[in-house]
Amino acid sequence: MTATLLNGRELAKTMQEEINADVAAFKSAYGFAPTIAVLRAGEDPASVSYARAIEKAFGARRMGFALHTLPDSASQSEIVALVAKLNADANVHGIMVQEPLPKGIDEAIVKEALSPDKDVDGVHPVNAGRLSQVAPVGRPPMVGPFFVPATPAGGLEILKRFNVELKGKHAVVLGRSNIVGKPMAMLLLRENATVTLCHSLTADLPAVCRSGDILCAAVGRAQMIKGDWIKPGAVVIDFGVNFVGEQMAGDVDFAAAQEVAGMITPVPGGTGPMTNVMLMRNVIEAARRQAR
Amino acid sequence: MTATLLNGRELAKTMQEEINADVAAFKSAYGFAPTIAVLRAGEDPASVSYARAIEKAFGARRMGFALHTLPDSASQSEIVALVAKLNADANVHGIMVQEPLPKGIDEAIVKEALSPDKDVDGVHPVNAGRLSQVAPVGRPPMVGPFFVPATPAGGLEILKRFNVELKGKHAVVLGRSNIVGKPMAMLLLRENATVTLCHSLTADLPAVCRSGDILCAAVGRAQMIKGDWIKPGAVVIDFGVNFVGEQMAGDVDFAAAQEVAGMITPVPGGTGPMTNVMLMRNVIEAARRQAR
Repeated sequence: MTATLLNGRELAKTMQEEINADVAAFKSAYGFAPTIAVLRAGEDPASVSYARAIEKAFGARRMGFALHTLPDSASQSEIVALVAKLNADANVHGIMVQEPLPKGIDEAIVKEALSPDKDVDGVHPVNAGRLSQVAPVGRPPMVGPFFVPATPAGGLEILKRFNVELKGKHAVVLGRSNIVGKPMAMLLLRENATVTLCHSLTADLPAVCRSGDILCAAVGRAQMIKGDWIKPGAVVIDFGVNFVGEQMAGDVDFAAAQEVAGMITPVPGGTGPMTNVMLMRNVIEAARRQAR
Repeated sequence: MTATLLNGRELAKTMQEEINADVAAFKSAYGFAPTIAVLRAGEDPASVSYARAIEKAFGARRMGFALHTLPDSASQSEIVALVAKLNADANVHGIMVQEPLPKGIDEAIVKEALSPDKDVDGVHPVNAGRLSQVAPVGRPPMVGPFFVPATPAGGLEILKRFNVELKGKHAVVLGRSNIVGKPMAMLLLRENATVTLCHSLTADLPAVCRSGDILCAAVGRAQMIKGDWIKPGAVVIDFGVNFVGEQMAGDVDFAAAQEVAGMITPVPGGTGPMTNVMLMRNVIEAARRQAR
């Protein structure tokens, strides 16, 4: 058996067309483009290249992009002051603060300085809290509007667009970061899956992974999840972005896994290309809410 | 085999002595008592009797208690205005808004009107979000201070005081309410358990429950969890408060369960008596933070 490929690159292209239409409609209604501000302190190479990728992606969709940089020596109050300025700037609809922040900066304080309404990265506790508290799909949400971090939102979007049944299924999420594992677990719970969150201290991790109808991997260790950790026919969502030499590799041993799984995201070309489109969707949504 | 009884009533008595000492120390340092304000709109009988129980419990510990009632006809803006007044009142350290609120009131707006610093019930999204985002025990928290809802906090306290190992264990939480199931799952995850959240749509619920080294039940259905749903030797925390005729019953079939489990909370006398002491602890903590 060979698994169906969950082609995130193709899906992202489809969604870029949808975003083009959304941006055009927004512009004709309001006369300006949904705009993100990216804030960076220092010149971490990965952050620099990620900011360039965002700029390029937003430019291609004719959305607004503004980069605000501070030196590595920036103080916490300088960073917070810049966040406050962007919060107050009506021409900025979404704000992303790039990590890592310089040493000695309290990330919690910077995150909470963001206006939750502009926190398109979903890092503010208000957004994490509303995601945690929101009612299951099909019921009134019982919380205010919120933003979900783009990477897990992209994973869920793949599952939905490929019509993967989630209700009542057992979803196993491997990894418990605040930007992938935990929000992914909450998204799956909201879709009425039974959700298991496991991590580096989990006993008999292979057996736990094998119990998942849906297996989401976000551990950051190349090819850690072996073929025999996967339930035959399971749907595998691989959030891993690792390098083996020059070669990008996921958290899942893809060659072995595709012989066992029913559906699987490749790396590269799976969850990765979805992240930028979900970020764009969040910025458009932020602009809509603010324009109302 | 008969399970060890996790006697919450006895533990609550021990903790009341600790609270007496904490309150005395607080009063001698600051000259006033940690004080809760309870806000109720309407006269729901269960809410009336719960407020009386809180008043009695706080009085017995010489802590402050103030009840603020509005008529069932109170508008949302009247309720929010009262919350704002209590937020601003330096003599009030913790605020609890009783549910149910009158029909037509948006609970989300009332919850978010609370100052997170006085939200001793842990219902504000900022508190739920920080609990969701907090790092595992033993690492810097990476979030600001927060409050956990009293009922799951009491369940965790029982596990800790009875020296139940949580790290690497499989904890199954049955029920996903915002006041018990979801925060309990987050607390157990923080303690490095592997956590499964299941609910009414979970497939083969007995088998999922049977996979738990720790089984926490918060479904609100009397004696739903049968003896053969429990892994032999498992630790069972029963949050259920149900009535079978005049008799209080948990979510677990206690008579059958105690023959299988290693440890179990009775109902009544298990998690119930812990809720008030955890609420008191939250109010003392709130008063300390505000006094600094």
